[in-house]
Amino acid sequence: MKTQVAIIGAGPAGLMLSQILHLQGIESIVLETRSREAIEATIRAGVLEQGTVDLMKEIGAGARMEREGFRHEGTILRFDGIDRRIDFPELTGGKAVMVYAQHEVIKDLVAVRLASGGDIRFEVSDVSLHGLDSTSPSVRFRQPGGELQTIEADFIAGCDGTQGVSRPSIPKGVLKGFERLYPFGWLGILCKAPPSSDELIYALSERGFALVSTRSPEVQRMYLQCEPTNKIENWSDDRIWSELRARLATRDGWAPIEGEIFSKTVVGMRSFVTEPMQYGRLFLAGDAAHVVPPTGAKGLNLAVADVRVLARAFGEFYESGREELLERYSDIALRRIWKAQRFSWWMTSMLHRFPGADEFQHKVQIAELDYVTGSRAASTALAENYVGLPFDEIAH
Amino acid sequence: MKTQVAIIGAGPAGLMLSQILHLQGIESIVLETRSREAIEATIRAGVLEQGTVDLMKEIGAGARMEREGFRHEGTILRFDGIDRRIDFPELTGGKAVMVYAQHEVIKDLVAVRLASGGDIRFEVSDVSLHGLDSTSPSVRFRQPGGELQTIEADFIAGCDGTQGVSRPSIPKGVLKGFERLYPFGWLGILCKAPPSSDELIYALSERGFALVSTRSPEVQRMYLQCEPTNKIENWSDDRIWSELRARLATRDGWAPIEGEIFSKTVVGMRSFVTEPMQYGRLFLAGDAAHVVPPTGAKGLNLAVADVRVLARAFGEFYESGREELLERYSDIALRRIWKAQRFSWWMTSMLHRFPGADEFQHKVQIAELDYVTGSRAASTALAENYVGLPFDEIAH
Repeated sequence: MKTQVAIIGAGPAGLMLSQILHLQGIESIVLETRSREAIEATIRAGVLEQGTVDLMKEIGAGARMEREGFRHEGTILRFDGIDRRIDFPELTGGKAVMVYAQHEVIKDLVAVRLASGGDIRFEVSDVSLHGLDSTSPSVRFRQPGGELQTIEADFIAGCDGTQGVSRPSIPKGVLKGFERLYPFGWLGILCKAPPSSDELIYALSERGFALVSTRSPEVQRMYLQCEPTNKIENWSDDRIWSELRARLATRDGWAPIEGEIFSKTVVGMRSFVTEPMQYGRLFLAGDAAHVVPPTGAKGLNLAVADVRVLARAFGEFYESGREELLERYSDIALRRIWKAQRFSWWMTSMLHRFPGADEFQHKVQIAELDYVTGSRAASTALAENYVGLPFDEIAH
Repeated sequence: MKTQVAIIGAGPAGLMLSQILHLQGIESIVLETRSREAIEATIRAGVLEQGTVDLMKEIGAGARMEREGFRHEGTILRFDGIDRRIDFPELTGGKAVMVYAQHEVIKDLVAVRLASGGDIRFEVSDVSLHGLDSTSPSVRFRQPGGELQTIEADFIAGCDGTQGVSRPSIPKGVLKGFERLYPFGWLGILCKAPPSSDELIYALSERGFALVSTRSPEVQRMYLQCEPTNKIENWSDDRIWSELRARLATRDGWAPIEGEIFSKTVVGMRSFVTEPMQYGRLFLAGDAAHVVPPTGAKGLNLAVADVRVLARAFGEFYESGREELLERYSDIALRRIWKAQRFSWWMTSMLHRFPGADEFQHKVQIAELDYVTGSRAASTALAENYVGLPFDEIAH
């Protein structure tokens, strides 16, 4: 079977790429090892940048998001028992973010892709990539029934995440990895309760970081900095609420609204970038090429930003035969990626207690939060990163 | 002998305090262990914030500074072989800095103080502070001739730097210190050459930090990050120039103008804050209470900022008898001090190679420099700190 772009992975990057290519008149096939039900049910947080929101609408996948998502026009930084608000539209010329979970984005992208005749193959196995350094690469895979298939394509887009087959298909020595592991993780809970706050609360206390987020009017999401090796069994409901109350306490007695906890997970914190993001006719996008700690809410948005550049580069190729933008894809994408890495690292460093950190460090963190929330320039710098830096990279 | 405020130390803080108090009609005596010639000859760099420049003029000590100082309306950040300029007036509503060496500031302050009848006692010894927790503290000291004297005062201002007698005169357990040592130092040179650049150049290279500064049209100041224990003997002139050329290289072949090196020093890098800055009737100001690494050029300016608050508090006391502002002095001063500490720590962290730092860290530094110099908001945040944050603290 033949297509123009073979896309490995039906996450946000792969699905969005497929839909944008479709709108540009470029064919693709998406391969996914999991079932449609599984990818649509894997609960993950989602804070969509303004540019991601706009793109969802542009490609015809924004209707439910606009109806059910929560537009957040600000966020709260809480430290020293006080709240300071960052007003996004005021500081960024009208931009904001949308709180809308990643699996909801995936549902909408699958639906719009299938409605427009898209070819997504779920539950495939034994995926392997071939001829990457030729002009006719191919992908072999096994259908759910067991039959082996081959796709011959002009290009392959590796959108299959950190554990996918794409990155390891590139010969050793081509890629260089840059990694930072953080000495803590996040314990995340879902609970049945009304929202404790209209906006996200990022809190630094002497006991560590806490985050109050939301899922829906009935279900709330909260996070606590914990040791990276913490077992969930160590975290009784009582301990979780007691720790959330302590870390989120304010001078005027704020406390989270409690409710039945029905999900607990511990996630590690890691920064990772691979350079370059291309080998021959294989282009990596999203988590296949980079990982950010969740503090800056950049993971999904970076994947979308990659795909926006990549789709434009494929568009140029099919329109004019020119490969210039494809050749620049990695450089263009990496510039934004490193800025998002910097922002995520900075937010993480400012808001967490580091094991072994001295009191000077804690004082500097408080001074930084005081400065960032007190200076219009510094607040704007935070806000413009949070809602998403402009997409001006291609012009450079 | 009696006075209203006994000032320990004839550095920028003590001299400026004495002059402002004089203009408010408050008497003071300044005690200094070194000779006038010695303090006027100890060469130290000086980048004066806009507020420091304005204050020098207000107190009648600005004439020579305006004539001989260099107003710098911007600075260069150099990384990855390229230059990016931060334009101070454009970003801060017209503010700039003045490059004017600290010992020149001291000369001007001594001159103006003596011209207005000020009482500065040079070359005193055996200074000791007494009755700090009473309303009639006193200072004992030995005159150059050997005679013991006592000053009875209402207040004592401890402006005698990191090695002075003031801070150790406060009983143990009252003060808390916060310290950060950096794993590198600065090798500073003075050389006979014309300026290599119209503006300061802060450079990060893979070999470490370098700074191009200026003293006069004939004498230049340059710095290199080095190991904190580096001996000056290890640094031949050839090695210094070779290292400066390497760290300051640009894509278009920039090189410093070389000349005879006639001074080499290695300085350590340290952040330190003591809290509170008051004990009874003793008030600490400047280096007696805090030290910053030189990267942000904040040391002298913070001393001046302390003194500005302290003079106003003394003024309130002598005008109305109210001690409210004196009681708030430490809190008010510390808020600015911690912001300056944050800025100095941030500039230092962004611009130096840390031993053991991984490549991820270097990439984040480059991304930060790229972002800071590319975003108007982030450039403004740097500029507003460099020219000096507004003096709005007393209003809070």
